[in-house]
Amino acid sequence: MEARKKYISNTDFEDAKRIYENRVGYNLKLQKERTDVIASIGRVTCKPVYALESSPCYNASAMDGIAVNSRSTHGASETNPIELQENADFSYVNTGNPINEPYDSVIMIEDVMELGEGKVNIIAPSHPWQHVRPIGEDMVKGEMIIPSGHIVRPVDIGALLAGGLESIDVYKKPLLGIIPTGSELVDSLEELREGKVIESNSRVFEARASELGAQALRYEPCPDEFELLKARIKQAVSECDIVVINAGSSAGTRDYTANLIEELGEVVIHGIAIKPGKPTILGIIDGKPVIGLPGYPVSTYVAFESFVKPILLSMQGLEECGEESVEAVVTMRIPSSLKHKELVRVNVGHVSGRFVATPLTRGAGVTMSLVKADGLLEIQRSSEGLDAGTLASVKLLKPTQELRKTLVSIGSHDIIMDEISDMMKLTSGHVGSMGGIMSMMRRECHIAPIHLLDEESGEYNLPYIKKFFGNGSMALIKGVKRLQGLMLQCGNPKDINDFQDLAREDVVFVNRQRGAGTRILLDYNLKKLGIDPGAVNGYERDMNTHMAVAIAVKTGSADAGLGVFSAAKALNLEFIPLGYEEYDFLVNADYLEDDRVKRFIGILESEEFAARLDNLGGYKLEEAGKVIRV
Amino acid sequence: MEARKKYISNTDFEDAKRIYENRVGYNLKLQKERTDVIASIGRVTCKPVYALESSPCYNASAMDGIAVNSRSTHGASETNPIELQENADFSYVNTGNPINEPYDSVIMIEDVMELGEGKVNIIAPSHPWQHVRPIGEDMVKGEMIIPSGHIVRPVDIGALLAGGLESIDVYKKPLLGIIPTGSELVDSLEELREGKVIESNSRVFEARASELGAQALRYEPCPDEFELLKARIKQAVSECDIVVINAGSSAGTRDYTANLIEELGEVVIHGIAIKPGKPTILGIIDGKPVIGLPGYPVSTYVAFESFVKPILLSMQGLEECGEESVEAVVTMRIPSSLKHKELVRVNVGHVSGRFVATPLTRGAGVTMSLVKADGLLEIQRSSEGLDAGTLASVKLLKPTQELRKTLVSIGSHDIIMDEISDMMKLTSGHVGSMGGIMSMMRRECHIAPIHLLDEESGEYNLPYIKKFFGNGSMALIKGVKRLQGLMLQCGNPKDINDFQDLAREDVVFVNRQRGAGTRILLDYNLKKLGIDPGAVNGYERDMNTHMAVAIAVKTGSADAGLGVFSAAKALNLEFIPLGYEEYDFLVNADYLEDDRVKRFIGILESEEFAARLDNLGGYKLEEAGKVIRV
Repeated sequence: MEARKKYISNTDFEDAKRIYENRVGYNLKLQKERTDVIASIGRVTCKPVYALESSPCYNASAMDGIAVNSRSTHGASETNPIELQENADFSYVNTGNPINEPYDSVIMIEDVMELGEGKVNIIAPSHPWQHVRPIGEDMVKGEMIIPSGHIVRPVDIGALLAGGLESIDVYKKPLLGIIPTGSELVDSLEELREGKVIESNSRVFEARASELGAQALRYEPCPDEFELLKARIKQAVSECDIVVINAGSSAGTRDYTANLIEELGEVVIHGIAIKPGKPTILGIIDGKPVIGLPGYPVSTYVAFESFVKPILLSMQGLEECGEESVEAVVTMRIPSSLKHKELVRVNVGHVSGRFVATPLTRGAGVTMSLVKADGLLEIQRSSEGLDAGTLASVKLLKPTQELRKTLVSIGSHDIIMDEISDMMKLTSGHVGSMGGIMSMMRRECHIAPIHLLDEESGEYNLPYIKKFFGNGSMALIKGVKRLQGLMLQCGNPKDINDFQDLAREDVVFVNRQRGAGTRILLDYNLKKLGIDPGAVNGYERDMNTHMAVAIAVKTGSADAGLGVFSAAKALNLEFIPLGYEEYDFLVNADYLEDDRVKRFIGILESEEFAARLDNLGGYKLEEAGKVIRV
Repeated sequence: MEARKKYISNTDFEDAKRIYENRVGYNLKLQKERTDVIASIGRVTCKPVYALESSPCYNASAMDGIAVNSRSTHGASETNPIELQENADFSYVNTGNPINEPYDSVIMIEDVMELGEGKVNIIAPSHPWQHVRPIGEDMVKGEMIIPSGHIVRPVDIGALLAGGLESIDVYKKPLLGIIPTGSELVDSLEELREGKVIESNSRVFEARASELGAQALRYEPCPDEFELLKARIKQAVSECDIVVINAGSSAGTRDYTANLIEELGEVVIHGIAIKPGKPTILGIIDGKPVIGLPGYPVSTYVAFESFVKPILLSMQGLEECGEESVEAVVTMRIPSSLKHKELVRVNVGHVSGRFVATPLTRGAGVTMSLVKADGLLEIQRSSEGLDAGTLASVKLLKPTQELRKTLVSIGSHDIIMDEISDMMKLTSGHVGSMGGIMSMMRRECHIAPIHLLDEESGEYNLPYIKKFFGNGSMALIKGVKRLQGLMLQCGNPKDINDFQDLAREDVVFVNRQRGAGTRILLDYNLKKLGIDPGAVNGYERDMNTHMAVAIAVKTGSADAGLGVFSAAKALNLEFIPLGYEEYDFLVNADYLEDDRVKRFIGILESEEFAARLDNLGGYKLEEAGKVIRV
């Protein structure tokens, strides 16, 4: 067993960026090359480009008509038309034809009366240069078309060609070397088995590099062997302009990256006060930036964007321009530590005239939180977190126009929300039914999915709305009836048959989070049967979604959980049905005319939606889409 | 001479869009294909993608440490450490290693005290699933990773691979056929001569298609010959999914496009109430969209964006998302006609807390106005134009972040402004010195370049600032001394020697626009000599820049103009010097601490700037960058 280095530093994020970028910049030699204009889209000019030719390069007719000398048209009017003879007094011209002596102007064909035999009448004089595009009207030889450091756009290509350029000087695309490391990594599904992981981070880097105007060279995954990795790093440094090693950047026994960078060059910083992304290594070998990125997908993404992206840009003469950001209201308290700056993935929507941000899970391993995120909310190191209702700056991962078109749902989770998100733009926060009601009271969502059983009346949802709002301003959009029940392992090995069995010593339960309607349903049943929740093993282990409960049961980390049939069916679990409950959508009546809400209702009523529910199983559609004012 | 069709329709822009998109949509069959996930960046999913594997696919350690069974750790504390034996009670694990029976949790290596001989002490109990990533924590088999109609981003590629996908179903990239037409078109600089034009529009379309996720097939430029063009269109329609023909869309003798589309299929609309872009033809051949685009670069760009782009997107299952737009204050009156909707190219900057928009030239042939534009301002057909000071919506062509970093200059023109724009982000509006002063009064710019001679004192600029502001709130940043003089044709064929000669019968002058300091200088000299401006031929023909005057003289459309030496030098003109004038920058004193203004002053003081002036010629640097409070 190798010696473990247990500690890495905790350098302030902004300090780390500044120190490293200065060190890298000191060594940076920007490389240039010549490229054809027609292939220059997205390339960055390394010097200003001046027109080699004027455009137009001759005096050109701007209209279809006749070219004349203005002196021969003096005095023409409707009452005193002037007759002109083709070739003697005028020539027919099309747009773009040259206008030369003796002609100095053009009369539009619409204003010419043809008399036959090459004669025409005109009824208004022309003045010099009328309807003529003089040489250089568009651009003059020697004029600057685009400055240096400019990213070539399609319109620039048109202007460059018009200015007589066939090729231009641009920065070379930097070549990013990517070394995946880890004996657990495999490259294909066939090799996947316990203890193995499909290598995916390098593919994210490849795609991101190409978006940033760079090229990528990915090396085969390298097992955790010191000498092998050393040879690979040396090769990559000699072949590429910048190298990333992923991962091995932490402080474990097999984390060789830092030692190797130190041996081959210099570790400038190891360990940065950023979450996620802390175990990042910023190094230099042979004057080239070599960066050890953490292994978890979200950490590595943050570290790549923070430290690799600015270098790829500066190698093309570009500065970071900063992503688009908006001020958004935070919908729930987000605690954070003074130990680090934190980037929180959030859903963003536009509700009641402002942007709202709802945090997603914060696990560094949860790629899906990055896929589902609409933005990244930054909590500074000096802050202990943000209270609900605070305004915070969110860097957007999607265009604002798209976010403005997105329906914001906050409340209970059901798999049907995923299906609806496939049919319209929908962002869905899972905080349970009660969380949805609270969110709606703060006007942070358009709709709140709820399934709340009123114990007294036995009625779903409406009693709760009356209790919490009760001013006639709300509406309930009827959704689906869904089958709830106990999810059990295949073949029910523990012979679990009812709620009573959940209190057995040998049974491990997995619960839903506080405020979830499903948890309330459990509590209601336990209370009815006089069972103390403390007697249920695993009552305190809570999950945010039906699928998370189902997978815990499926994989044996629990024997039983409470949830919907569709989740049990998706994973082939045993299921003891307890009955249908009503999963509906609370909405502020104001919003019934909102396009997004109207589209949502349309989907609930659609045949496509019914077909999808059929496929999932365990749903009944009775009044879906019906609106009840409350 | 062929018969001319002189009239095309003037269909309302929104009507045209709706009618045509409905017609095209009716025929549209979206094509699908399978693509490798690692090559799927930017592609659009045609159905939702569900995970084939859970991730992780086994219970995995989330830390480096030891795997234990939580039951064996009960009661451990600092005062009562528990000793564990390797392989009997625990195993060392690295992050990502599987955790299996009998182990159910992980203790971090930092919390483990190694005693040697495979023994360790622990000082705190673990609880079940501590530091374990359960199967499916990231994503559960069957979970939707991305919905349909989703543009694949780098993070999605990571999630798709993690979810066991190696390929996905996406829409096929539509193939755009591009037919340049026109006997005047040439493809290379060598063929360029009078009457010929370098074909460039097709290259803009090619680049734009690739940005929009489509492929492009460009055909050789086709001369204006009916049968040739007919064969080319038939070929393109058979080979491509959508075809654009550029140009021949107008109503001239050689404008065959509409007739040919009508012969081979159907012209749905010819002529749209949009400026620029009116002579657009929207047609259908064999169920495929075939669009005739106007020839002028700006018109064709507007028509492409309005009619081709939405079809290319919808062929990939995408809706138009709308460009980013801002509300901006219009800095000068923009008249428009009730006959059409108009798109005005504008410079946009962020001054005094709001965005300001200054119109650029409106000529449809002026590509450079599109290159220089920061945005497009839309004037609805129902409007006769916008007054200065009005708020208007501007679609941005550059990111807001970049515009916020840009220094806004409005005032007199000098070539040095181009050079400075190569050294920092600068947007430059040319409205003359007096226009700059007015713009500064309305707080629409950061700096106003001025060169205004006070006739009484013989002093430049300061007297004007005192007269118009006079409240001590302004400052003057000293700029350059520049040599003004008469620009004449090579060899001075008309023997022009002074202002008096400008009034000669045989001499044609070209002037600057009203409010330009150079025009004021002319007027001052004419007045001093008692010359009536009406006696100067061409006094009324005005240009907005020194270079525009120089080119008019160079190409013989005028014999003389007044302007700076650098413009004369750039075009090798004769030059009669009249003396140096002071070209300085008016600034609101508030702005002296603004980063953009500070950078600007730094440039004026820099050696690089001095070297560039040397190269241009005709400038003196004496106090450049010095700030005088007024």
